[in-house]
Amino acid sequence: MNYREASLKKHGEWKGKIETVCRVPVDSRESLSLAYTPGVAEPCMAIHNDVEKSFELTRRWNTVPVITDGTAVLGLGDIGPEAGMPVMEGKCALFKAFGNVDAYPICLRTKDTEEIINTIKIMAGSFGGINLEDISAPRCFEIETRLKEELDIPVFHDDQHGTAIVSAAALLNALKLAKKNIGEIKLVINGAGAAGIAIGKFLLKLGVKNVTLCDLKGIVCKGEEWLNPAQKAVAEITNLGLQRGKLADAMKGADVFIGVSGPHCVTKEMVKSMADKPILFTCANPVPEIEPEDAKEAGAFIVGTGSSEHPNQINNVLVFPGLFRGALDVRANTVNTEMMIAAAKGIADCVSDKELSTDYILPYAYDKNAHRSVAKAVAEAAVKTGVSKLNK
Amino acid sequence: MNYREASLKKHGEWKGKIETVCRVPVDSRESLSLAYTPGVAEPCMAIHNDVEKSFELTRRWNTVPVITDGTAVLGLGDIGPEAGMPVMEGKCALFKAFGNVDAYPICLRTKDTEEIINTIKIMAGSFGGINLEDISAPRCFEIETRLKEELDIPVFHDDQHGTAIVSAAALLNALKLAKKNIGEIKLVINGAGAAGIAIGKFLLKLGVKNVTLCDLKGIVCKGEEWLNPAQKAVAEITNLGLQRGKLADAMKGADVFIGVSGPHCVTKEMVKSMADKPILFTCANPVPEIEPEDAKEAGAFIVGTGSSEHPNQINNVLVFPGLFRGALDVRANTVNTEMMIAAAKGIADCVSDKELSTDYILPYAYDKNAHRSVAKAVAEAAVKTGVSKLNK
Repeated sequence: MNYREASLKKHGEWKGKIETVCRVPVDSRESLSLAYTPGVAEPCMAIHNDVEKSFELTRRWNTVPVITDGTAVLGLGDIGPEAGMPVMEGKCALFKAFGNVDAYPICLRTKDTEEIINTIKIMAGSFGGINLEDISAPRCFEIETRLKEELDIPVFHDDQHGTAIVSAAALLNALKLAKKNIGEIKLVINGAGAAGIAIGKFLLKLGVKNVTLCDLKGIVCKGEEWLNPAQKAVAEITNLGLQRGKLADAMKGADVFIGVSGPHCVTKEMVKSMADKPILFTCANPVPEIEPEDAKEAGAFIVGTGSSEHPNQINNVLVFPGLFRGALDVRANTVNTEMMIAAAKGIADCVSDKELSTDYILPYAYDKNAHRSVAKAVAEAAVKTGVSKLNK
Repeated sequence: MNYREASLKKHGEWKGKIETVCRVPVDSRESLSLAYTPGVAEPCMAIHNDVEKSFELTRRWNTVPVITDGTAVLGLGDIGPEAGMPVMEGKCALFKAFGNVDAYPICLRTKDTEEIINTIKIMAGSFGGINLEDISAPRCFEIETRLKEELDIPVFHDDQHGTAIVSAAALLNALKLAKKNIGEIKLVINGAGAAGIAIGKFLLKLGVKNVTLCDLKGIVCKGEEWLNPAQKAVAEITNLGLQRGKLADAMKGADVFIGVSGPHCVTKEMVKSMADKPILFTCANPVPEIEPEDAKEAGAFIVGTGSSEHPNQINNVLVFPGLFRGALDVRANTVNTEMMIAAAKGIADCVSDKELSTDYILPYAYDKNAHRSVAKAVAEAAVKTGVSKLNK
């Protein structure tokens, strides 16, 4: 039995991967009078008088909905909101196990950008943060941008930024091994959708100077007619040499390849055309851009994949539990770039110089120390950048 | 320290009355591959192919959001969504403790009827049922009616029907003690808002023939100009003798008084004007329509209140956990009248003839047997009336 068959069977047995439990006594007249009527009127009025108290007197301080519209679930595409639930529940289970965050899965029966934004804004007073999940591009950009502007709690689109942060962490450690300077590398990203664009933008902020994105139609280059608005925007800050052509052209002389695209689009020849000590993160799931053995045969120095069946899994499970834990702990009112950079460094730092090897550049997804490290780094960055409401 | 002060202190210590927990192992590569990627793709596709499977492969079968807009919270009125959260969380805690239902509190930042309906419809694919809470009249009628029509999961407005069901349960046992026939009593309800109207309608279905509603402006009578649309509708089926006047007029000769109104609006004289063995359920909170001692002095045979500090608490905590437990257990696609009548009888039946006394007409709110009894009765009624999807 493979993982998919076994998983289906397990899901039928589990009948849900998360559960809501009661944390207070309600088994007597007295306890009911405290947790419920008539006593509960007092905390209600305290919040009515100062809404910020909702973070002290209710679970709001620790709750994050995992919200999707089911349009870009895993590699499965637009499978509908109900069908997205097993992934959202899984995410909530990981939020709890690794970040002690109380996450609720909410799958929306709409694909309308404005309706999604409005629905989340209407619910936002119940939560301490918002995790957007598996919403297809380009709607995910507008949804995240608007919600960040209009809400005063952290909003995070994991497919974009979680992937960017964990890729950045992997890159930092891979470059350490390759003894290359982040400001001098040439880096190619294949897949110019939500994840690819977010990775590109984030790595620029982290210090990479030469980033080129590719898509099925070729290299993302200013002036190309086929670019969508998000690609047009990123073309302003990447591929400054205005290279045109296909992926094979972009990869010539590249130090790093990051794939968030599709199966087997990278050949051995392309790997051989890269610079010395080539680094490849082939994150396509379930089939990577090139099989790790083939990449190694072609001279790859380090290979990471999206799968746990190979070394160096580039898994955003390493990001979101700790990132929200840190943000919630200091009542951050946003997730800013500094917090994301801190998360990436927090992950990278979990692998000591002694442990670091070409087959171990990232901690395992289930390593609780890694999640704690991310939480600490993110909380510190939030305080330092003045977005912690506890400061005021 | 009174209950309210003590409750505020406790809420500050608890920092949330509910919590989401992880029910599955996620502590190894293998377990992550089953609960999350890559295995999770299979249950996703199974639901994509048959949405009904979302009730088998996720927690949907057991989840109910407790949704409010914060406009009619307890007796506190329109205190806002965030301030309503302690009550909603309390409700979720009770849902779990007494019904093993996984309830999520969701407080909406809108009072617009259409926006509330739309928001709930958009979220409905994530849940097994919908519990509406503390939404002010008349919007609550439209919201519940429309959602019942447009969704295929149980929708229940607790302030209306929970109150109606528990009042009916109390009435059944009180009439047993008074040896009166339900079809022959005269019953007066004071407070012609959401709860009062729902109680009136429900008791008519339960077999009461002579129901009269009153409000601050007087007796609800067909033709009165001050009636709002909901009162106009109920005036068609109540007070068929077209009595006009004030509460004192309505109460003359009445066998039963049910108050969901305000403090101390019933006098000893009014009680004295009632029929033999008068029954009074004075549910106004925190101050009842008449103090129980005063009612007893004036000749009341049975007095129930909304408070746990007197005998016979008329508390809808006795209803919602078991009602949803029963409905979810058989995958009911609605909550119909038969299920509500079954709930009322299920509660009433929990008090044996031997236990039944004028000071003990209802089980205690924390009596787990009562909740089990409600769940069983509701599930049976759902199956019998053909609204269980498990039948098909």
